Amino acid sequence: MSAQPIDGRACAEALAAGLAADVRRLGEAGHRPTLAVVSAGEAHGATVYARRLARLADELGIGHVARALPVTVTLPEVLAVLAELNADTAVSGILVLRPLPAHLDEATVFRALDPAKDVEAVHPENAGLLALGVPRFVPSTPGAVFHLLDTWLDAVGEDRAAFYHRSRIVVVGRSNTVGKPAVALGYAREASVQSIDVWAHRHGGLGRHTRWADVLVVAAGRPGLIRAEHVSPGAVVVDVGINAVVGPGGRTRTVGDVDAASVAARARALTPVPGGVGPVTDAWLLRSTVQAAAQQVGSPPERTLLEAS
Amino acid sequence: MSAQPIDGRACAEALAAGLAADVRRLGEAGHRPTLAVVSAGEAHGATVYARRLARLADELGIGHVARALPVTVTLPEVLAVLAELNADTAVSGILVLRPLPAHLDEATVFRALDPAKDVEAVHPENAGLLALGVPRFVPSTPGAVFHLLDTWLDAVGEDRAAFYHRSRIVVVGRSNTVGKPAVALGYAREASVQSIDVWAHRHGGLGRHTRWADVLVVAAGRPGLIRAEHVSPGAVVVDVGINAVVGPGGRTRTVGDVDAASVAARARALTPVPGGVGPVTDAWLLRSTVQAAAQQVGSPPERTLLEAS
Repeated sequence: MSAQPIDGRACAEALAAGLAADVRRLGEAGHRPTLAVVSAGEAHGATVYARRLARLADELGIGHVARALPVTVTLPEVLAVLAELNADTAVSGILVLRPLPAHLDEATVFRALDPAKDVEAVHPENAGLLALGVPRFVPSTPGAVFHLLDTWLDAVGEDRAAFYHRSRIVVVGRSNTVGKPAVALGYAREASVQSIDVWAHRHGGLGRHTRWADVLVVAAGRPGLIRAEHVSPGAVVVDVGINAVVGPGGRTRTVGDVDAASVAARARALTPVPGGVGPVTDAWLLRSTVQAAAQQVGSPPERTLLEAS
Repeated sequence: MSAQPIDGRACAEALAAGLAADVRRLGEAGHRPTLAVVSAGEAHGATVYARRLARLADELGIGHVARALPVTVTLPEVLAVLAELNADTAVSGILVLRPLPAHLDEATVFRALDPAKDVEAVHPENAGLLALGVPRFVPSTPGAVFHLLDTWLDAVGEDRAAFYHRSRIVVVGRSNTVGKPAVALGYAREASVQSIDVWAHRHGGLGRHTRWADVLVVAAGRPGLIRAEHVSPGAVVVDVGINAVVGPGGRTRTVGDVDAASVAARARALTPVPGGVGPVTDAWLLRSTVQAAAQQVGSPPERTLLEAS
């Protein structure tokens, strides 16, 4: 058995294409969905991400503004920038790139976002609406995980509801940005959902948990954490990890949290890294930006938006 | 093996006694913690609950005001009452009794609460802070579940951290008021946590999930749902259910979601119904009221409050 690859690039392209109608409709009404990207300092990964988003936004006719602040920026200065973006009616959504420099308290920064523009749902109110099962915005990485799963199920002819109802989803990693919201999205699909974190690993019990997974979502940030022995035959594995590792010869390459070579021999399907969750995440964030714009102008989103939620 | 009963009444008494110092200290500074209880209509269970809270508040020197609105009350009228209580500096915490009549949208009512007085953490902002791992208030039923577990672990000489780190907690039931916040509290203890709901049951797979539990928290609202075959030997079982059933002879009695007679033969420990989670829930809500009062007057809570969080 060799796992079927779940193609994130094709999924992302379809998602982006589906946004075109909404962007056009908003444009005809004089509104251009626009994403503001706020960064402090120049973490390499964040810079690459911002550039990729800008390129995709251009392709889709979505506006983007970058507010690249110096690494020495003070908290009051960041809050002033956010206040300005909150008030700017030309800005639909605001993304604050992480990690922030250590002297900036992340929670304070996130609380300063207008919840109506908080497309990553990092403001407590939006985190709460997601936890309560009525999200205003679905954060992009966990949103991408489930959009990828949903569309893969459609492609292989499985009924989504029947699949999720009988499945145990195990989420490895419990961050506020990926693991916890992924659990909430699993709840929304009425699956059984288990969350494990570093402690299960330290107690040598990782496989004891992960081998029960029908769907294994791995967001631990550890290259190669999940190997064949952690996966039961026939599981669907979604690899959220994006880790830069230096290989022989000093070349850097990007690998996931899953040891793809060994896991592919047991799993039913597996998302590759790169080319899996990543591209869908980008498209999902722009989808949320379009959704924010539609909400702000009181225009109900097209079916494309609703279907993917 | 016969399961050790986990005594909720003793736990609640100790928790209430621990509040006395905080109430006295606030009183010396001229502040009296006060809980406002808002109800619409007269659901029997809610009325009994409100009466029990009032009695315990009296014992502890905590103020209480009841706003019992008629079942025909309109949404604007409810919102006006909440606005008044929000503005009243003599009110520390506000509890809206559920269920509300069907014509009142629960989410709209909850959103109208001042988050600083929302002791049950039903406002999205407070639900979000809990989901993000930095709760302002811990809702009373899940708070009671873990306070009962924590104090039981202390009593039997188990190290809390070691116990939770190696344990799998399975939560049956996924309500916004009990199941989901209980999962968040399990995360705070760095346990592996699994949430299952009605679908696992419908697929005949309830035991497949619950038998893996080291700690089984049952909040399904179904009398006797969990029987011996759903529980692994040595598990710790917390029964959140409070169900009124009519027995032979027409007498009503209160039973939990756990079939205590059969489960007691397998479990290591079990909370009884009545006398388990219920009494601790009452004390926890008043604890949150005291905590709200302390926050509002800018007085850091005593260690008793912090220790129990």
